[in-house]
Amino acid sequence: MEQTSTGKAQETAAIPLSADLDWRQAVSWGPGGLVPAVAVEATTGEVLMVAWVNQEALERTISTGKAWYWSRSRKQLWCKGETSGNLQLVREVLADCDSDTLIYKVDQLGTGACHTGSWTCFQTTLAKRRE
Amino acid sequence: MEQTSTGKAQETAAIPLSADLDWRQAVSWGPGGLVPAVAVEATTGEVLMVAWVNQEALERTISTGKAWYWSRSRKQLWCKGETSGNLQLVREVLADCDSDTLIYKVDQLGTGACHTGSWTCFQTTLAKRRE
Repeated sequence: MEQTSTGKAQETAAIPLSADLDWRQAVSWGPGGLVPAVAVEATTGEVLMVAWVNQEALERTISTGKAWYWSRSRKQLWCKGETSGNLQLVREVLADCDSDTLIYKVDQLGTGACHTGSWTCFQTTLAKRRE
Repeated sequence: MEQTSTGKAQETAAIPLSADLDWRQAVSWGPGGLVPAVAVEATTGEVLMVAWVNQEALERTISTGKAWYWSRSRKQLWCKGETSGNLQLVREVLADCDSDTLIYKVDQLGTGACHTGSWTCFQTTLAKRRE
């Protein structure tokens, strides 16, 4: 464990995950064999990004402890942060009640999840209640 | 504002949202005219559920302040909590850097977001790091 610039304790090494059930069967894979995965900061619960996962991406996530996704535009698997160093070390993978959406609880390394340099990808307000 | 059983202050009335930009053009609608929306508790940041949104669902969300979605299985619009009373009052709609995923920041009313009676739909651990 190390301290980040924000003072949060953070894992710095990827550790393979253990599965208690047959996750391949448990997930209800959607169109194209994909489900959305929400990457959430494990310590704060903040939503960092949403990306797509197929069976092989989840296999790699579980076997490596790093967050793997499927790029719909590039049609290839990608390991988040592989080139930027902004890896996501996965603590836990959760499924929802319909088993068609995942949460990756992660320790986000580096400058954040977003390719723009922001910590979270969700930066744009489309509409808001006027308090 | 009222106090919930957990002591959190909570809005109890739906209020229409104001948009600062042309959200119809801003959203990069995906296959079938849909994008995933992550419903997040406004006060805690907890991820409650993920569902699908099309342009009309977002239109209704903004005009009513209640969370509307598109059901892929039933092929119809649905207002979360319309029958159960477990409405989601929306404070803010955010888009990510690619404009192909939304966050609804909501005040979750009633017993929670999940049809099983749980507060959040994410109850199942598929894999976990052994600490």
